[in-house]
Amino acid sequence: MSNRYDIAIIGSGPAGLSAAINAKIRNKKIIVFGNEQFSNKLIKAPRIDNYLGFHGIKGQELKEQFANHIKAMDIKINFERVNNVYAMGDYFALMAGDNNYEAKTVILATGIEFTRPLKGEEEFLGRGVGYCATCDAPLYRNKVVSIIGYNKEAEEEANFVSELAAKVYYVPMYNGVYNIKSTVELVKDTPLEVIGDLRVRKLVLKNREIETDGVFPLKDSVPPSQLVPGLEMEDGHIKVDRHMQTNIPGCFACGDCVGRPYAYMKSAGEGQVAALRAVNLLDNRTK
Amino acid sequence: MSNRYDIAIIGSGPAGLSAAINAKIRNKKIIVFGNEQFSNKLIKAPRIDNYLGFHGIKGQELKEQFANHIKAMDIKINFERVNNVYAMGDYFALMAGDNNYEAKTVILATGIEFTRPLKGEEEFLGRGVGYCATCDAPLYRNKVVSIIGYNKEAEEEANFVSELAAKVYYVPMYNGVYNIKSTVELVKDTPLEVIGDLRVRKLVLKNREIETDGVFPLKDSVPPSQLVPGLEMEDGHIKVDRHMQTNIPGCFACGDCVGRPYAYMKSAGEGQVAALRAVNLLDNRTK
Ligand SMILES: Cc1cc2nc3c(=O)[nH]c(=O)nc-3n(C[C@H](O)[C@H](O)[C@H](O)COP(=O)(O)OP(=O)(O)OC[C@H]3O[C@@H](n4cnc5c(N)ncnc54)[C@H](O)[C@@H]3O)c2cc1C
Ligand SMILES: Cc1cc2nc3c(=O)[nH]c(=O)nc-3n(C[C@H](O)[C@H](O)[C@H](O)COP(=O)(O)OP(=O)(O)OC[C@H]3O[C@@H](n4cnc5c(N)ncnc54)[C@H](O)[C@@H]3O)c2cc1C
Repeated sequence: MSNRYDIAIIGSGPAGLSAAINAKIRNKKIIVFGNEQFSNKLIKAPRIDNYLGFHGIKGQELKEQFANHIKAMDIKINFERVNNVYAMGDYFALMAGDNNYEAKTVILATGIEFTRPLKGEEEFLGRGVGYCATCDAPLYRNKVVSIIGYNKEAEEEANFVSELAAKVYYVPMYNGVYNIKSTVELVKDTPLEVIGDLRVRKLVLKNREIETDGVFPLKDSVPPSQLVPGLEMEDGHIKVDRHMQTNIPGCFACGDCVGRPYAYMKSAGEGQVAALRAVNLLDNRTK
Repeated sequence: MSNRYDIAIIGSGPAGLSAAINAKIRNKKIIVFGNEQFSNKLIKAPRIDNYLGFHGIKGQELKEQFANHIKAMDIKINFERVNNVYAMGDYFALMAGDNNYEAKTVILATGIEFTRPLKGEEEFLGRGVGYCATCDAPLYRNKVVSIIGYNKEAEEEANFVSELAAKVYYVPMYNGVYNIKSTVELVKDTPLEVIGDLRVRKLVLKNREIETDGVFPLKDSVPPSQLVPGLEMEDGHIKVDRHMQTNIPGCFACGDCVGRPYAYMKSAGEGQVAALRAVNLLDNRTK
């Protein structure tokens, strides 16, 4: 099992990065999933006064400080989105697009998604609604798929699905230039509701309705309970104890995804606790 | 009650400072107790790699970053040691040397003391053993007092007590120049045990025994349960929930004093949570 990581860290905001540096200092074999910008919530902050040690720093500047830190420690980020994490007993299997990974422990540092689910979204989850269009693409061969994209990465999923589906609608929730294939139909409208019977039938938007077999709202982060089946939630957050342990042994969580206050320092502190606990667990197992 | 603070923060390490900046951003009237160096555990660190944003920084340098941060926010530290905190119902009374303070909420960020208690120390607590020699001085008029000093501030207490006591012995636990009055007897030896019957009778050291009425081990921090009567402890740490609330309403705690791992980032994150919770409580009260 030479490819099995000690710790897989999902998320590259302050929580994930703090977990990464602490795990690396303790000589663990880690893999960090996230994106080049680390966190939109970091780079978009106009001015940060409450990160002890940096007064009045711009989010973009703090991001550079973090980038220097992880570079100095030779930590790299894997720019893949993790779509599923399965607890396999003594390890976890992680699905990230076409690739699979294995890790002995997992730290969820996925942040929190502020956009509310659409009406009907939760009701039809698994019956036409999904959060990974590329994963589910084979199910939609010659069918109609609607993708609601909250970020540019969603465009790639739309393009990919269009190779199999009969028809793909793309509803962007952001402004900009859309790199979508000519076969994908761009719908600039506001989605309101998913309706159907046994399965999804329609996506209702403000100004039109689309007959569709599948609806994929693709946001910055997957709902944690979708990401990790069986994960216990509490008031919309992942439930953890004071050691950042979730209800699944070996699976830790930290940062915004575990609760308020939503803040950098709190997230980074929790990332450290989660990493050191994971290290403890690994060290005790090998004893 | 114009002199009543919204939040009194006890301790000037990363936990206390982080609490201070967050409370100040939320416009609360705060007072921070601590010392000029902020924390010995900070300035003595030869190299810190796990404080996200600063790789390979010296403790002394990180301290300067913290100093710049609180200076930019006009936060000052009160260099008094708090000896007692009493919950008075809707406020707390804090005793610091000769001065008393009042605060609506309290955040304990006192760090943790690694030195073990002496044999007999806990047994004779309140029966000759104490942690604030100046507070208890009136009880030792014309008696014999032994002060075990773990830092230079203890010298002042020894000098003060010598004005009332018949005899004061000073046992320094550090090297350096001792600024003690000529009437105070310097004892360079290692204390081992406190013995007595109903009350303290003797301090046993490695090479001699001292007949004494009082023994004061004066360390960097007072044991939390001594500092705040009624405070619930768990495995040697202050017991808190995920919001840093102790068993006493309005009294929060954060940093090393609430548990492992002992680390800067974890302490600073918890300081933030404690401060924002205290702010919440205050805001809900005034609504
Ligand atoms: C405009 C703005 C200003 C703010 N200002 C402040 C401030 O001044 N002070 C303060 O303390 N806080 C501030 N915040 C809040 C702060 O941004 C958050 O609390 C903090 O970023 C949370 O850190 P995190 O690591 O938990 O998650 P995030 O920073 O949200 O990072 C999570 C990362 O993980 C990635 N991810 C999620 N799921 C997956 C997956 N399945 N696979 C791969 N990657 C994934 C996400 O894309 C994201 O990049 C601000 C927020 C905003 C939006
Ligand atoms: C040599 C050394 C190296 C370290 N290196 C690292 C490292 O690389 N990375 C890392 O993460 N951690 C490191 N640590 C651990 C780290 O120092 C602690 O976890 C951290 O300082 C805890 O912060 P704190 O705010 O809880 O308490 P402290 O930093 O201990 O601060 C508490 C302060 O409150 C004051 N105080 C206490 N009681 C009172 C009172 N009644 N009245 C007034 N003031 C009071 C104390 O005098 C002290 O100054 C190191 C520790 C040491 C000793």
